[in-house]
Amino acid sequence: MSAPIDFYFDFSSPYGYFAAEMIMPLAEKYQREVLWHPILLGVSFKAMGQQPLAAIPLKGEYSLRDFVRSARFLGLPYKHPSPFPIPTQHPARAFLWINDRAPALARAFAQSAYRAYFVEGKNIADLGVVLDIAGSVGIERDALSEALSTTAVKDRLKAEVELALSRGVFGSPFFIVEGEPFWGVDRLPQLEKWLAEGSF
Amino acid sequence: MSAPIDFYFDFSSPYGYFAAEMIMPLAEKYQREVLWHPILLGVSFKAMGQQPLAAIPLKGEYSLRDFVRSARFLGLPYKHPSPFPIPTQHPARAFLWINDRAPALARAFAQSAYRAYFVEGKNIADLGVVLDIAGSVGIERDALSEALSTTAVKDRLKAEVELALSRGVFGSPFFIVEGEPFWGVDRLPQLEKWLAEGSF
Repeated sequence: MSAPIDFYFDFSSPYGYFAAEMIMPLAEKYQREVLWHPILLGVSFKAMGQQPLAAIPLKGEYSLRDFVRSARFLGLPYKHPSPFPIPTQHPARAFLWINDRAPALARAFAQSAYRAYFVEGKNIADLGVVLDIAGSVGIERDALSEALSTTAVKDRLKAEVELALSRGVFGSPFFIVEGEPFWGVDRLPQLEKWLAEGSF
Repeated sequence: MSAPIDFYFDFSSPYGYFAAEMIMPLAEKYQREVLWHPILLGVSFKAMGQQPLAAIPLKGEYSLRDFVRSARFLGLPYKHPSPFPIPTQHPARAFLWINDRAPALARAFAQSAYRAYFVEGKNIADLGVVLDIAGSVGIERDALSEALSTTAVKDRLKAEVELALSRGVFGSPFFIVEGEPFWGVDRLPQLEKWLAEGSF
């Protein structure tokens, strides 16, 4: 098997949600593993001197329209959530803890959390909601709850976010394969060309 | 013929250059007229509290790579110019003056100016270069030179840029058709779906 695809995403990112629905079939087509990495966009924005998308004049209003239209274009269900955006430390930490134990379950958790927020309107900033979603995909709720209260899991997320920044990751979704960075769900066609043909 | 496509672009924008090469065949396929509108991204960035793309940490470095790779992906020639970005008042004003007299010539001028900058490495911030390009597509150089020194043509560009901002235009390329905004050359597939099927 060739080099894996690193997939970076923030749980509050609509385009990250779209990518989470699309990356596995694409990777399977080209027999690539996908390593999922939750990040915190707030940290990237600070490093860039930027604000969250929805807070930027003109671009923010456009984006709300683009989220909904892009979902229809891609054939994915979408109901713009409120509040938006949200802090995503809880689902990100939960993902990391699960991923260390069972990567396939972690992916199932991530997709369920994304759908809970962007389709069902559940606020995944809420710890209780995160634990419920984890429970629904087969994670032991009490063990996860206990882990999330530790300093270790908090430090772990911080370190993962710093590592992503050091690799030049600044948005969601963001992919790196064989050192080549691809930003945005609209770069999936370029990523596919890369997987099919190599460097172009 | 149905409603025209408004096409907004900055002469210093690589993605604007790509769009200028791609929009006419697309529009002809769906029998739409294209109204070309040069804008000044600096003014939009000020309204948004943003910096030019290349000046933003992380995103700037990624963008330099994305310009070149996107050109290859789209099958267009590209040589990243230096200096970059540049002030584009001169080609924008020239475009408006030519467009009032002969829209087809103005499009030819815009495409020549884009190729001069992004393929041949000529600095189209320079008035002499702009006049040479205009001359090469059949514009009377002296008449254009005289027009560009007037207050009228400067005020005209300012007003056009303000009008674009008031319509929510904040990037390049930017398209509006039947009130629907599309930002970025990577939204051309969505624009095409709109032209083919209407609202989706």
